[in-house]
Amino acid sequence: MDRLPGFRDFYPEPLPHPDVWSADARQYIFDCWREIARRYGFREYDGPPLEPLDLYTLKSGDEIVGQLYNFIDKGDRPVSMRPEMTPTLARMAAAHERNYKKPIKWFAVPQLFRYEKQQKGRLREHFQFNADILGEAGPSADAELLALLIDVLRIFKLTSEDFVVRLSSRNAWMEFFEKRCSDPGKSYEFFQIIDKLEREMPEESSKKLSAIGFSLNEVNDFIVAGKPTAELESIVNNLSDRGLAEFVRIDYHVIRGLAYYTGVVFEAFDKKGEFRAIAGGGRYNNLVKLISGGKVDMPALGFGMGDVVLLELLKSRGLLPAFDSGIEAFCLIEDETLRGPSLKLVQHLRESGYAVDYFFTLTKSDKQFKRAIELKARFTVKLEITAQQELVVRMKNLQTREEKIVVPPDLPGLL
Amino acid sequence: MDRLPGFRDFYPEPLPHPDVWSADARQYIFDCWREIARRYGFREYDGPPLEPLDLYTLKSGDEIVGQLYNFIDKGDRPVSMRPEMTPTLARMAAAHERNYKKPIKWFAVPQLFRYEKQQKGRLREHFQFNADILGEAGPSADAELLALLIDVLRIFKLTSEDFVVRLSSRNAWMEFFEKRCSDPGKSYEFFQIIDKLEREMPEESSKKLSAIGFSLNEVNDFIVAGKPTAELESIVNNLSDRGLAEFVRIDYHVIRGLAYYTGVVFEAFDKKGEFRAIAGGGRYNNLVKLISGGKVDMPALGFGMGDVVLLELLKSRGLLPAFDSGIEAFCLIEDETLRGPSLKLVQHLRESGYAVDYFFTLTKSDKQFKRAIELKARFTVKLEITAQQELVVRMKNLQTREEKIVVPPDLPGLL
Repeated sequence: MDRLPGFRDFYPEPLPHPDVWSADARQYIFDCWREIARRYGFREYDGPPLEPLDLYTLKSGDEIVGQLYNFIDKGDRPVSMRPEMTPTLARMAAAHERNYKKPIKWFAVPQLFRYEKQQKGRLREHFQFNADILGEAGPSADAELLALLIDVLRIFKLTSEDFVVRLSSRNAWMEFFEKRCSDPGKSYEFFQIIDKLEREMPEESSKKLSAIGFSLNEVNDFIVAGKPTAELESIVNNLSDRGLAEFVRIDYHVIRGLAYYTGVVFEAFDKKGEFRAIAGGGRYNNLVKLISGGKVDMPALGFGMGDVVLLELLKSRGLLPAFDSGIEAFCLIEDETLRGPSLKLVQHLRESGYAVDYFFTLTKSDKQFKRAIELKARFTVKLEITAQQELVVRMKNLQTREEKIVVPPDLPGLL
Repeated sequence: MDRLPGFRDFYPEPLPHPDVWSADARQYIFDCWREIARRYGFREYDGPPLEPLDLYTLKSGDEIVGQLYNFIDKGDRPVSMRPEMTPTLARMAAAHERNYKKPIKWFAVPQLFRYEKQQKGRLREHFQFNADILGEAGPSADAELLALLIDVLRIFKLTSEDFVVRLSSRNAWMEFFEKRCSDPGKSYEFFQIIDKLEREMPEESSKKLSAIGFSLNEVNDFIVAGKPTAELESIVNNLSDRGLAEFVRIDYHVIRGLAYYTGVVFEAFDKKGEFRAIAGGGRYNNLVKLISGGKVDMPALGFGMGDVVLLELLKSRGLLPAFDSGIEAFCLIEDETLRGPSLKLVQHLRESGYAVDYFFTLTKSDKQFKRAIELKARFTVKLEITAQQELVVRMKNLQTREEKIVVPPDLPGLL
């Protein structure tokens, strides 16, 4: 029996082969995400992995359903496994908005799902770091969020050699659009064409643009000029104050596909251009109002960073740490009459906070020692009886091979 | 728009009201689970939250489907959101069994799902700590797993006054059964009756037992005698060696409902009897073989501990810590011309590992200070310009109200 296509198992290291997903690498990524969120004062939240289908169609229209992992549940409710976190966040924040001081700075580490029939072999789930700020309309919030994004990547030891955050503005593009077209109904189509500009043949983009009254030349000129809006300038200055200017670049190629963005938008890319976007986000000032049925109106912005591209990037740059068992002491039990006191020693060490392992049953000495080495234990510990019939612990540092004898009263500070 | 019935949102503290689920309490519970698993040398794994329906019906028969959150996916596959972790574990361990040294000691923190139509208002998801040992048939593995269970409860500051692990044995019950009944087909029904003994009226149990040729009296006598098997004795002695004997008790009332248990079974209960079982588990030596279609045969045992009962118990015993923002320094920006350097200070402190917050925009001094207090920040930091035009940091310890001036070169060790 096998797992479902597009889903992953996560195994402890050492992995059976390199294509198996590592639970240790996943936890390392989650820990780093949480650590930077903590330093920035972002608080964790979570919602259900399953939500009413309406939560997604309300925002994105019915065409989104083709990509959702949706179904009818046993209570005849149209439901969907969550494809993204932002609608859940908007729902939750709106429900208890009065309880939280503004700006609200929240993060989550949800598993997200999608179901695209044609995409054979592609993943149908991934994990994402989601960070959002609600209740602050000014660019200082955008700068804080971007600084967080930059520092999240930097905690993995990625540098400005490795990645850049490309900053853009829906406002700038909207101004461009409105100067040339008086039909706001065409703006979504226009944004979709811009979003695909770098991936499509110029002839194709040119044809599509012409069809709605734009020329590829003026679009390209606008991108090349890359004239920052006052808002973008303020954000870049703010990041510059923090010493983070080298990590961002104004780039109007970025516009983000989703319909709901309203202001600054951005994407983080690896500089070699080997991977899809590492992270992406922007302002969505109207979403909370939409989701809450008009009850709560809060400006908002956020980004998402998936675990899959990030892991690929870290692997390719050799930035994943080595993961081992984490065992600090391996207890050698060579004399079965000492198993009882040895278990007591194991218990004592664990209660003192150490990670300890041992063999459950009578095992040859050399096999025990070999296991300690394989587990990369820092120490072996072994009970011995002295000539004076005293029970003592022989400790061996497996790096230095240094040995020492410890008497039980000194155990608390043993390692 | 509301979430689906039976699902939970998790909010950061302070909570809007006591019935809202706390993301901070959840993370605290997860952290404690992981910490004890680490000390015991258990390694984390995870599988998909969605599995083929067969994975569960294979083990538990078709009657289980009534309780599952199952559906037909877009690829016409019968699938189910996972109701428990053990089948996934058995599938995963069997798939890469040769890669891992025995005994395999693994844990997971999955979210699990069920759908019972009649249970209005009851949760349809919860999180569970799952710990399992594979590849060791002897009672020393059972003892290790029980010690882990006990220490998981103890890390939450629960004591032997608060809980007890009731130990029992399917083997002992099987022997009892076989002495009195020659039809093995009735054993499952018999176990079901024993499992409900404490919850049903004696008349009801007596009637059911008589129907398959047993008397309630002899069943009760067997339970009251509570004669430990050699295996149970060995486990209790092992736990006694560790100093953990006071946390366990032989109690043949426990038998566990699931069909697949084969040996020792156990459940942890609060001693006041206010809650459902805190945790439960046992040996399931045949499951890996069943799930792997006979390819891999490994003895195994494990337990699960849910987050809901545990949280209720910790709350009722006053053992949940207070959760706050975790902010260590709040940066006061009272002079807007110093916002740039203040952002640099914030960045510097965050890069040094501190959790730092500040107001994004011009805010009255007293409101800033009030926010620092609300967030329970340890310190406020504020840039000032001295008479010598030097930029210095004024730090205030919010507990002692002690102030000091720090010059920027000394910032690394600031807090």
